[in-house]
Amino acid sequence: LETKLPKVGTTIFTVMSQLALEHKAVNLGQGFPDFAVPQRLVDALSRAMAEGRNQYAPMHGVPALRQAIAAKTARCYGREVDPDAEITVTSGASEAIFDAVLAVVRPGEEVVVLDPCYDCYEPAIDLAGGVAVHVPLDPQDFTVDWQRVREAISPRTRMLMINSPHNPSGAMLTEGDMRELASLLRDTSIVLLSDEVYEHIVFDGARHESVLRHPELAERAFVVSSFGKTYHCTGWKVGYAVAPPALTAEFRKVHQYNTFCTFAPAQFAFAEMIEHEPSHHEQLGEFYESKRDRFREQLQGTKLRPLPVPGGYFQLVDYSAVSDLSDAEFCRWLTVEKGVAAIPLSPFYARPPEGQRLARLCFAKEAATLDAAIERLKAL
Amino acid sequence: LETKLPKVGTTIFTVMSQLALEHKAVNLGQGFPDFAVPQRLVDALSRAMAEGRNQYAPMHGVPALRQAIAAKTARCYGREVDPDAEITVTSGASEAIFDAVLAVVRPGEEVVVLDPCYDCYEPAIDLAGGVAVHVPLDPQDFTVDWQRVREAISPRTRMLMINSPHNPSGAMLTEGDMRELASLLRDTSIVLLSDEVYEHIVFDGARHESVLRHPELAERAFVVSSFGKTYHCTGWKVGYAVAPPALTAEFRKVHQYNTFCTFAPAQFAFAEMIEHEPSHHEQLGEFYESKRDRFREQLQGTKLRPLPVPGGYFQLVDYSAVSDLSDAEFCRWLTVEKGVAAIPLSPFYARPPEGQRLARLCFAKEAATLDAAIERLKAL
Ligand SMILES: CSCCC(=O)C(=O)O
Ligand SMILES: CSCCC(=O)C(=O)O
Repeated sequence: LETKLPKVGTTIFTVMSQLALEHKAVNLGQGFPDFAVPQRLVDALSRAMAEGRNQYAPMHGVPALRQAIAAKTARCYGREVDPDAEITVTSGASEAIFDAVLAVVRPGEEVVVLDPCYDCYEPAIDLAGGVAVHVPLDPQDFTVDWQRVREAISPRTRMLMINSPHNPSGAMLTEGDMRELASLLRDTSIVLLSDEVYEHIVFDGARHESVLRHPELAERAFVVSSFGKTYHCTGWKVGYAVAPPALTAEFRKVHQYNTFCTFAPAQFAFAEMIEHEPSHHEQLGEFYESKRDRFREQLQGTKLRPLPVPGGYFQLVDYSAVSDLSDAEFCRWLTVEKGVAAIPLSPFYARPPEGQRLARLCFAKEAATLDAAIERLKAL
Repeated sequence: LETKLPKVGTTIFTVMSQLALEHKAVNLGQGFPDFAVPQRLVDALSRAMAEGRNQYAPMHGVPALRQAIAAKTARCYGREVDPDAEITVTSGASEAIFDAVLAVVRPGEEVVVLDPCYDCYEPAIDLAGGVAVHVPLDPQDFTVDWQRVREAISPRTRMLMINSPHNPSGAMLTEGDMRELASLLRDTSIVLLSDEVYEHIVFDGARHESVLRHPELAERAFVVSSFGKTYHCTGWKVGYAVAPPALTAEFRKVHQYNTFCTFAPAQFAFAEMIEHEPSHHEQLGEFYESKRDRFREQLQGTKLRPLPVPGGYFQLVDYSAVSDLSDAEFCRWLTVEKGVAAIPLSPFYARPPEGQRLARLCFAKEAATLDAAIERLKAL
C-alpha cells in the first residue's frame, strides 16, 4: 500500500508530548492549559448526561448552542448570523478546517497558506487533491506581505487560509490587513478560511480582527473557532464553523458523513455556560497577559531571547545564544537533556527559513509549571 | 460555488428526526435507544472530568482504552491485537469509516459496496475521488451473491465494504460468507472495511462473524466499531478502528489531521467501564431479543408484514398491504399523518429495487414507546 500522504509523519505535537512524558520534561510543547475547566461547565455536562442528553445531537449542532454562538458573534463582532443556516458545530476546530477544505477544494485547485502555519492545513488540502501554495510571513515579526500573496494567487486559487492570533507566532492581523485582504479577494471567487481559535486571547488592548467584523470578507468565509482554548478544555474537542448559507450547505455535506455530530452532553454544557456567563471570555486576555508578562520577565534570566507576543498562548524564543543546533534537534535536546519540552518551528513551514533558531514555548500553565521550566532554562 | 457532492442532500436520518419532532410522531426512524446510559459510565465520565482529564487525549486514543479494546478483541474474537500499533480511537464509527476511505482510496479507484448500505459510505468514496461500485444484496433476505461481487471486482478495486449485522436489514454474514470473502480477496491487494457497530446485538444464538475471527481477512482489514450501540449512548460519538500496523499508520495520518483526538473524559470512562464490567455486552443480545420478539408479536396486530431480524435493532416491514406509495412517500405520510416516524429503504440504495415497499422501524425503545407506536400502526 503506497501512502497517500508521503509528507506526513506523526504530528510534532504528539512526538514532543510523548518525548516529554518519557523524559519527565516540563511540557511547554503541545498547546494545552494545565488549569481546571470552569466548574459550571463540568457541572452542566454532568447534568446533561443525567438528563439523558446522550443520543445523537442534531447533525449541525444542538439548537441552544448554535443560538449561543450566534448571540456571541453578534455581541463580540457585531455580526448577526442565522444559527440554522450559518453555524455548524464540529468535533473541534480541526474537524471544521478539514471539512471546509474537503467541501470546496477540488483536485488541482490551489490553496494559499501563509507559512509558518498549523500543521493540519496542508494534509487536508492534499487529501482534497488540492495544491498548497506557500507564502512566507516576515521571518522577524510574522506580518503578511500582501504583495506576495497577490502574486501567489492564480486562476486556480480556490481558497486562502488565515489565522489570527497566529499559531505559532502570536502575530495578529490588523484592520489594515483586513482592508488589503478585502481588496485582494474582491472580484475573485476565492473562499476564505479564517482560523480564529485564539480569538479571545489578545493582549495590550488590541482588538481581534475577526473576519466576522468585515462583511465583505465574511460573505465568502468559513470562520472557524473552538471552545478548547477559551474554556481550558482542549480535550473536549467542540468547535464550530460560521459561514454563509451556501458555504454552510456544502460544509455540512462533508460534516454529516464525517463525524455526523459532536459529543452531545458537552454541547448542552457550552450552551448553558455561554448563556449564564456571556462575558466569561472577557477576562481571558487579562488572565493570559499576566502569565505572558511574568513568563517573559523570567526569561530575562535565561539566554533565550523572547520575541513579542501580541496574542495566543505561545512564546517564541530565539535560542541562537545557546546553541547552533537546528530547531528540531534543539527542541529534542532541550526535552531529553534539559527537561523542558518545546516545539520547533520548522514543521510549520514547507520551506523553513535558513538558519532560523526559534522554539515555541506554551505559557498556558500554572505559575509553578512555568517556574519549574524557568529553573531548568536558566541552566542553559 | 458548484457542489462537490451533487448526490448528497441532508441525510434521511436528520430529515425524518426533524419531521418526527415537528409532527410529534413517535420516532422509530433514526437509530438510537431511549434507555439510560449505564450509571457507572456516567459516573466514570464525571470523575474523569473532576480528575482533570480535560486536555488533548493522545491522538490515537488514551492507552487504557486501547488496552481495554485489545482485551475485548481477544476475549470476544480470539484475536490478539497490539493496542499501540493496531487500534485508533475516533469520534464515532462514522469518522473511522471516513478516515479509512480517505486514507487508502485514490482518485479513480473503485470501492465495492453492497446495497442497501449505510448512507455515509458513498460520500466518503466520492470525496476521495473514488468510484463506488454497487452490488445489490438479495432483495428478500439481504444475503450476498458472491458471484456478483466477484464480477464487480476489477483491477481498479481498492476496497470492499461489508457490514454485519447489517443496517438496515439486520442480516448477518455467516462463516460460509467469510470463506467466500477470503477466497475472493486472496491474491488481490483489496482492503476490506468491515462496519461492525452492531456486533453485540445478535439473536437466536447466532455468532457474530467478526472479521477479527478470520486472520486471512483481518490482515487486510479495517474493522470499525463504536460504543454508541453497546452502551446506549449514540450521542457520545466514540468509536474505533482496528487494523494491521501498515493500515493503521495510513489511517492515523488522516485521523490526526481530521479530528486529531476524541473527547477525552469519555475515553477514560469507557476504559473503566470495560475493565470493571468486561461482560456487560453479553446481555445485550438477550435484552434486544426480547424487545424484538415483543415488537414483532405486536406487529401481528397491524397490516405491516415484519421481515426476519437476525441482528441489530431495526425491524423491516413490508407495507404493501397498506399503501402503494413509494417508500419515501409512505414514510413521510406515516410520520406526518399517522404519527410514527420510519426510515425508507431507498436512500440506502444507488438504484432502489423496483416496487420495493419496505420501511425500517427502530425497536431500541422502551416498551411504552413501542406500545404507543403500535397503537398508531394498528389504525393503518
Ligand atoms: C492538536 S495538538 C496541537 C495543539 C496546538 O494547537 C498546538 O500545540 O499548536
Ligand atoms: C448518524 S444518524 C443514523 C443513525 C443510524 O445509524 C441509523 O439510523 O441507521
